[in-house]
Amino acid sequence: MAVRVIASRNVYNGAISLRMDKFSVNEKKVVEKEIVEHQPSVGIIAAMEDDSIILVRQYRRAADKILLEIPAGKIEAGETPKQAAVREMDEEIGYSGKLKPFLKWYLAPGYDTEHMHLFIATNLTKINKRRKMDDDEDIVARRLKLSSAVRKCLDGGIEDAKTIAAIMAYASCYSPSSLKPF
Amino acid sequence: MAVRVIASRNVYNGAISLRMDKFSVNEKKVVEKEIVEHQPSVGIIAAMEDDSIILVRQYRRAADKILLEIPAGKIEAGETPKQAAVREMDEEIGYSGKLKPFLKWYLAPGYDTEHMHLFIATNLTKINKRRKMDDDEDIVARRLKLSSAVRKCLDGGIEDAKTIAAIMAYASCYSPSSLKPF
Repeated sequence: MAVRVIASRNVYNGAISLRMDKFSVNEKKVVEKEIVEHQPSVGIIAAMEDDSIILVRQYRRAADKILLEIPAGKIEAGETPKQAAVREMDEEIGYSGKLKPFLKWYLAPGYDTEHMHLFIATNLTKINKRRKMDDDEDIVARRLKLSSAVRKCLDGGIEDAKTIAAIMAYASCYSPSSLKPF
Repeated sequence: MAVRVIASRNVYNGAISLRMDKFSVNEKKVVEKEIVEHQPSVGIIAAMEDDSIILVRQYRRAADKILLEIPAGKIEAGETPKQAAVREMDEEIGYSGKLKPFLKWYLAPGYDTEHMHLFIATNLTKINKRRKMDDDEDIVARRLKLSSAVRKCLDGGIEDAKTIAAIMAYASCYSPSSLKPF
């Protein structure tokens, strides 16, 4: 496959940036397409000893509703993915733990550069002195049995694709019995 | 929960639009945030009789690589989600089928309005006279055993969150034996 980028120009700069790319693949038609430039990010399956996981509930402006999701957030400048995961766990759920890389994925690869590193956190310990949250984070941590989280993935109780991907992949690898009632 | 939108102004218009929202939740801090406005979309698990599914391989500019994904695309003006799914199946894989709504989800609800309707397509029939593809679609359909698709979700062969969510959720509901080797 031969990709030829003819032009790439920034059309908006902010917390999210937007660029317009003009390119062709295998010397076929020239395509012009907006690309959302978003920092890479992390997501975490925070797994307790008793086969429960910690999710977060928060108001999501783009969806205009409260959603139940895995803890997640941007990788800040200078951070490794693992450092970002440690910070997000602190900010969003107030736990530290042993982090193991699990999967990596794009959220909307047709037009958005966001690339997410998913970790599994085990040996969780509550943090007493927590970090200050981001401005727009008004987050409630919620602990659920994995089997109940799986049910929510399949009955509409969870409406976030990365959270469904994370829970279903984790359950099938680490706790297949949580998938059983379905 | 009380959401108060103080201002919402468009900052970029195109195939994707961007707006800047100023809002508060429960009368706490006022937040300013860019929101990507993207049309709602459809995704399809195209399920053959023999426990295989049809995925598509295509170059994705935002990821700058070729990815393996479920057939998916925007809902065009005037279309129902089901009509969009019928059209996308025609354009991307060349099959018609019996469509059943399965799940709905957001891809990046922190900043992107895209809401995807996932369908399961069965009774697949090859279409002889296919529709013209979108400009930027240079797509190859690929048929995989469901168990092999599940393996790719877990070994990095599939790197798209919605595709992983769709395959794992479908397998756990309709073909749990496909999850077995893991």
